[in-house]
Amino acid sequence: MSSDGTRRVELPETMLRDGTRRVELLDTTLRDGAQMRGVSFSVEDKLKIARCLDDMGVGLIEAGIPGSNPKDMEFFERAQALEFKHSALVAFGSTRRVGSRAEDDASLTALIRSGAGVAALVGKCWDYHVREVLATTYDENLKMISDSVLYLAGKGLRVIFDAEHFFDGYAADAAYSVECLEAACSAGASTLCLCDTNGGAFPSQVSASTSAMAARFAGRATIGIHCHNDGGMAVANTVCAFESGAHHIQVTVNGYGERCGNADLCAVVPNIQLKAGCICLPPDRLGQLATISRQVSEIANIPHIESSPYVGGNAFSHKGGMHIDGVEKTPLSFEHIDPSLVGNARSFMLSEVSGRGFMLRKLRQIVPNADKNSPVTHMVINRLKELEHEGYQYEGAEASFELEIKKLLNMYEPHFSLIEYKVIVSEPSIDGMGAAALIKIRVNGQVEITADEGDGPVEALDRAIRKAMERFYPQLGKMKLTDYKVRVIDSGKATAASVRVLIESTDGADTWTTIGVDKDIIHASWKALLDSMEYLLMKDAGATAGQAR
Amino acid sequence: MSSDGTRRVELPETMLRDGTRRVELLDTTLRDGAQMRGVSFSVEDKLKIARCLDDMGVGLIEAGIPGSNPKDMEFFERAQALEFKHSALVAFGSTRRVGSRAEDDASLTALIRSGAGVAALVGKCWDYHVREVLATTYDENLKMISDSVLYLAGKGLRVIFDAEHFFDGYAADAAYSVECLEAACSAGASTLCLCDTNGGAFPSQVSASTSAMAARFAGRATIGIHCHNDGGMAVANTVCAFESGAHHIQVTVNGYGERCGNADLCAVVPNIQLKAGCICLPPDRLGQLATISRQVSEIANIPHIESSPYVGGNAFSHKGGMHIDGVEKTPLSFEHIDPSLVGNARSFMLSEVSGRGFMLRKLRQIVPNADKNSPVTHMVINRLKELEHEGYQYEGAEASFELEIKKLLNMYEPHFSLIEYKVIVSEPSIDGMGAAALIKIRVNGQVEITADEGDGPVEALDRAIRKAMERFYPQLGKMKLTDYKVRVIDSGKATAASVRVLIESTDGADTWTTIGVDKDIIHASWKALLDSMEYLLMKDAGATAGQAR
Repeated sequence: MSSDGTRRVELPETMLRDGTRRVELLDTTLRDGAQMRGVSFSVEDKLKIARCLDDMGVGLIEAGIPGSNPKDMEFFERAQALEFKHSALVAFGSTRRVGSRAEDDASLTALIRSGAGVAALVGKCWDYHVREVLATTYDENLKMISDSVLYLAGKGLRVIFDAEHFFDGYAADAAYSVECLEAACSAGASTLCLCDTNGGAFPSQVSASTSAMAARFAGRATIGIHCHNDGGMAVANTVCAFESGAHHIQVTVNGYGERCGNADLCAVVPNIQLKAGCICLPPDRLGQLATISRQVSEIANIPHIESSPYVGGNAFSHKGGMHIDGVEKTPLSFEHIDPSLVGNARSFMLSEVSGRGFMLRKLRQIVPNADKNSPVTHMVINRLKELEHEGYQYEGAEASFELEIKKLLNMYEPHFSLIEYKVIVSEPSIDGMGAAALIKIRVNGQVEITADEGDGPVEALDRAIRKAMERFYPQLGKMKLTDYKVRVIDSGKATAASVRVLIESTDGADTWTTIGVDKDIIHASWKALLDSMEYLLMKDAGATAGQAR
Repeated sequence: MSSDGTRRVELPETMLRDGTRRVELLDTTLRDGAQMRGVSFSVEDKLKIARCLDDMGVGLIEAGIPGSNPKDMEFFERAQALEFKHSALVAFGSTRRVGSRAEDDASLTALIRSGAGVAALVGKCWDYHVREVLATTYDENLKMISDSVLYLAGKGLRVIFDAEHFFDGYAADAAYSVECLEAACSAGASTLCLCDTNGGAFPSQVSASTSAMAARFAGRATIGIHCHNDGGMAVANTVCAFESGAHHIQVTVNGYGERCGNADLCAVVPNIQLKAGCICLPPDRLGQLATISRQVSEIANIPHIESSPYVGGNAFSHKGGMHIDGVEKTPLSFEHIDPSLVGNARSFMLSEVSGRGFMLRKLRQIVPNADKNSPVTHMVINRLKELEHEGYQYEGAEASFELEIKKLLNMYEPHFSLIEYKVIVSEPSIDGMGAAALIKIRVNGQVEITADEGDGPVEALDRAIRKAMERFYPQLGKMKLTDYKVRVIDSGKATAASVRVLIESTDGADTWTTIGVDKDIIHASWKALLDSMEYLLMKDAGATAGQAR
């Protein structure tokens, strides 16, 4: 529901006063994106994502199919309490069933009950589907479309007609698929969204069909586009439709969606906004793109694809020496846009550090007078090479990187030393706890030995070391682990492979990530835990000791 | 080198006798693909991939930059011993340096020394780059191009001219970038490959520029295309260039490449071959595509992206109920091609099993007379729901799925029972081994207790259980673990989160995957190990017992 509490959602202008073109963005991460293999959003997850999208200024959020399951209906009920700044909610459903009345269709009435101001209504537009899947007459399908649109529009909803398989239909029997659009338009649909449901259309085909429909419906309805990625061309097809006159664009964050996914918001929006000079999002919000992309990956619990255009961690990372040199001379030489425009950053790969300015910038934060030829620079580079060979990757584990450099340069005194630990995992478990850890450490000459237990060996070890350390450093009490990731390196070697563990921690104010690599997963975790505690202690000490240095 | 030992590589015909169009495929996985973050191919890896590509029928394999490093030179030396069935090798290099002679240029002479019959030579075609990066005159750049091409062609090499940043150059100063192509063509380049080096071009731009160049150089040179994916449009840009007259196409397997990657062979080839009816690969080889894609992921040690068009595990997987019903009626309804054409397969997701025909087909392999309403079907569905709630995902872990159903239906008697195990991880390690495992099992009333050690707790446990079991089941000796994967589920809960372990095993003939989920990583691994051994034993028993049932 729009923030003024009314139902009707007006179509945005397609042209601003200064002549800038504007398209309406519909994000369907919560509906079509939720069809992705491995994704299962809770209502809470959906509310979080909706808030992100609203915050970024997405015009329409397609949030679910209220008629299909109670979870989606619950979402719409709870979403009414949200105060959106930019977004209106869209509920998705299908045209009425064959041979029934729209008023009696439970899924259409669910659209109305959802409280969303906009309905996206999918209907058949491919003669083949009418025959083979619906098994009804062409006329009945046209009536299903017009009845359903009329009914929803009559209840005050804005209706977006999703023309299923439009491009296949247009190729097979153009006249019939246009009749379907005409039926929706005459019945009051404000937007006719051309869908490449199978995801197999070619850009040339999308351009030609979209141009024809934009010309035909000019002044009567907005043309929209909804692409799937089965041919690897969803983003390009969307951009081509935009160039051919589509003013309504359906996308998902990170391209999430069934099979090969949908057109990726994170690529479509910067393509259109930065390169074609058209407004999709409020211009001051585009800089949130990389962050939102990661937040949604996080909520979906899907690894972020680092090679993703614009928002991936590798999108502006340079490895080839020639490219690094070029970019350092003039970024335009090997970058298509300024990464900060989408909230991303240029990076040079640590694996190509030798003598590079990048490494130096990092090092200078610690040793301000280091230069290219300083012995300290060579020492650091050599140590990094060794560590990378062992499987360390410091991208995203900056806390460990800083500790490693400081240890190497003797600029850092560890706060304790380990004498020994033993972790015991038992099956059957004893007293409900499967793992126990014993630990013995030395702090300022004092020895502490203690133990604790946990659900698993890492939790037991984490608890035991904290118990031992808190006696000396009570500030560790405020530290919390917020993420724990495991990657098997060289997984072809099976259980004897190395394991890379990344731990993210917070003290409420800051968040930092540490890394550990070892053949033994317990020991890899131990190294990352250790760095995490040391980093907090260094940070706390630095806040005062920093002045004195 | 071509198999007849001659150097010169002829241009393939662009048209077959029956009028079918034909394009030449150049795969640059080994050169541009190797620039991808996280990829580091050994010479051995490169030879393996080259053999895969040859086997699939790729015309040209761009394998490295012999002038840049000894590893690439070693590859070319060793590759001379390979007998390729379809492929010719291509060596990559740049035009001569500013103000020098081609004959004196070490990287040009390295191209000749490489023994490859084809040279891909990159040269500047964007006035901006000539000024800002080369810092030379426009004329000198033209001379650099023609001198270098003349030199290589004079030595008998076929020369492909890679026109760096062609689309940016053509947009900025069309006349100059065309002059660069003319220089290369006049000097003897057989192919002028238009490169979108920054990866930011739009399909409409690529189409228009490629059409113009195809018309201009008709009868004098073949036009090629090389796209990067920074705008998420590399595949579509390649397809658009093909439609606009490009007959030479540069791609990488899985789209590997610097930043956001290159145009993906696995999407471009089926798009062009299956949908535009043009030959890129010998038609009987297209069915190897999904396998080659996974083999290259494996060699590169990069997780396979399952949402990849055509070759991903999800590319033909259906989750939405409506889609599953549609596909079961007629696959064309929601699939753009028949998955078997690219060696892939349709799948329906286990997470949407409730009452679905799919679930039934799986179940019927075990209980042939089960139907939709059988009590056994409901029992299996309910059990699956519970397991999915715990974090199990049986996609790709079919062995565990089968065992689980059989256990539930009392159709399976485990071959042993665990009495207890204890795993001890010690730091410092004792005698170089960090972990030890003790295990006590019962097999047919006999108790066996034994122990073993390993680099990590999972390896120690794996060794100990095998040691205990092999006394009773010597056939376990032929089983080998080939992959071990760990995923933290709900990683926001940090070290107390659940862990999902997938183990892939082989007995030389078959390969199967098993799963374990637990809060304790050791116990999750144990469950997957157990299933793996039980599956082998069941399989072996089934081979004979199957007749008797």
